[in-house]
Amino acid sequence: LAYFPLNKLLIFGVGLIGGSLALALKRAQAVKQIVGLDRADQNLQQAVELGVIDIAATDPAQALADADVVVIATPVAQIPAILASIAPHLASHTVVTDVGSTKSDVLHHARQLLPAHYHQFVPAHPIAGAEKSGVTAAHADLFVGKNLVLTPTADTDTQAVATVRRMWQAAGAQTSEMSAEAHDGIFAAVSHLPHLLAFALVDELAARPNATQLFDFAASGFRDFTRIAGSSPEMWRDISLANREALLRELSSYAHELSRLQQLLENRDGAGLQALFERASQARQEWSTQQALPAKSS
Amino acid sequence: LAYFPLNKLLIFGVGLIGGSLALALKRAQAVKQIVGLDRADQNLQQAVELGVIDIAATDPAQALADADVVVIATPVAQIPAILASIAPHLASHTVVTDVGSTKSDVLHHARQLLPAHYHQFVPAHPIAGAEKSGVTAAHADLFVGKNLVLTPTADTDTQAVATVRRMWQAAGAQTSEMSAEAHDGIFAAVSHLPHLLAFALVDELAARPNATQLFDFAASGFRDFTRIAGSSPEMWRDISLANREALLRELSSYAHELSRLQQLLENRDGAGLQALFERASQARQEWSTQQALPAKSS
Repeated sequence: LAYFPLNKLLIFGVGLIGGSLALALKRAQAVKQIVGLDRADQNLQQAVELGVIDIAATDPAQALADADVVVIATPVAQIPAILASIAPHLASHTVVTDVGSTKSDVLHHARQLLPAHYHQFVPAHPIAGAEKSGVTAAHADLFVGKNLVLTPTADTDTQAVATVRRMWQAAGAQTSEMSAEAHDGIFAAVSHLPHLLAFALVDELAARPNATQLFDFAASGFRDFTRIAGSSPEMWRDISLANREALLRELSSYAHELSRLQQLLENRDGAGLQALFERASQARQEWSTQQALPAKSS
Repeated sequence: LAYFPLNKLLIFGVGLIGGSLALALKRAQAVKQIVGLDRADQNLQQAVELGVIDIAATDPAQALADADVVVIATPVAQIPAILASIAPHLASHTVVTDVGSTKSDVLHHARQLLPAHYHQFVPAHPIAGAEKSGVTAAHADLFVGKNLVLTPTADTDTQAVATVRRMWQAAGAQTSEMSAEAHDGIFAAVSHLPHLLAFALVDELAARPNATQLFDFAASGFRDFTRIAGSSPEMWRDISLANREALLRELSSYAHELSRLQQLLENRDGAGLQALFERASQARQEWSTQQALPAKSS
């Protein structure tokens, strides 16, 4: 792979994800120079002071000109504007990639906004927790053993895909590939839907006259179930809209499952309830056991 | 309070809850002798060997005759049979209490099965995690700082209530009182509904043809959200049926909230989605901060 170690990596958005990628690649000696760009001057300055990036870019056009790889690690709502702004300045060899939680929408934007460079755009999604944010939360181990999904199209240059894959493997991630549509379907089910369900529960309870009393008696089960309801509202607004169709399908399937549960309860069907709970409990325990295996540690 | 320290405590079901109560009361020197009864001979033998109880009862009628307090800490489905079996043997001074997760149904059973002793029956619910089970998981700290809800009726003897309250306070719990109906409404919302929602999600995903792939990409958000779906199917069948009406009301409110979410998504209403997520996120963070305060530690 011609580009390794990379001579120059340009990161838009040096927060938890962008900063952790930078630290991991430095540790792996996979890149010679890391240049950062960030809307927040203070965050960017901290990134330099913490040694997360080598240089805070002052001239984006010049910074782009000789970058081997550009990683867009900003909130997803900023991706279209960034794609439009970099389009005129990209060298033909530069690979562009992102870290967004949804992939069909990003591909759509890249097709429209980077038409001459679309084959060099490699959509990627690192599956790593994002409870904290900002460069001060970044650490070199964030992606070790975590999944990283690449969603190239038939048009994507295989060398560009290989470069992004190798970059994430150098950061410790376990990479896989699938279509953007398959990706968005999977994450609608196992991530986006649970977030919406947790937000919905807390919102519904918080709106009640006796909310204080309810929360007073909520215990550890509630705590874990609703932890993701503490996530960033802006981020989840963007994800919900970006993956709207898959998410609507998931909400519909889930509503159907809840109706089944409701029916079992209405019918006082103890055997049916127990069978449903047993299927779930067994699947959850098997998954939990799998997760505990070294290869799947997260 | 005449009964403290108790001369003799009889515990039906020496598992995690019954065993932990025994250990906590021994440590607090709140009881002179603890006698245990359990369907599982091996568990009961272990309870003696571990020093959790002093004596494994061989003659239930004799064991009951001079007990100050009887704690029923078995799975809730066994409570009616136990109430029926102890009714003929209870001394007039003996206080009977339970540890079930639902309270209206237990009161109903006590009214029917302990008619002459109903005023001495004090329904109680310790809010303590029950992921592990059996006497080997018992420990004296299980209830320290945890909520313990008493749900006496207007008929319940105030001295009996005081005895049970003081017993749980000796075990470290923070006690409060409310009606059984209020209790069941609160726990339907903050405990029983979340359990059903988690069971429903895992069951729905596990039934899909691509379940393995879905679970492969599930990460920490999914892990926490679904942790309670690993709970005991039998226990949750019993709780669901026992608190069926409140749970049906909760399912209905939640389904209504999901429809609102669905509508916001269908309308691509970013501002509406963000507002809902913000209300939830803020409430969740406030609750989390409250929980971290010493008085509410759990």
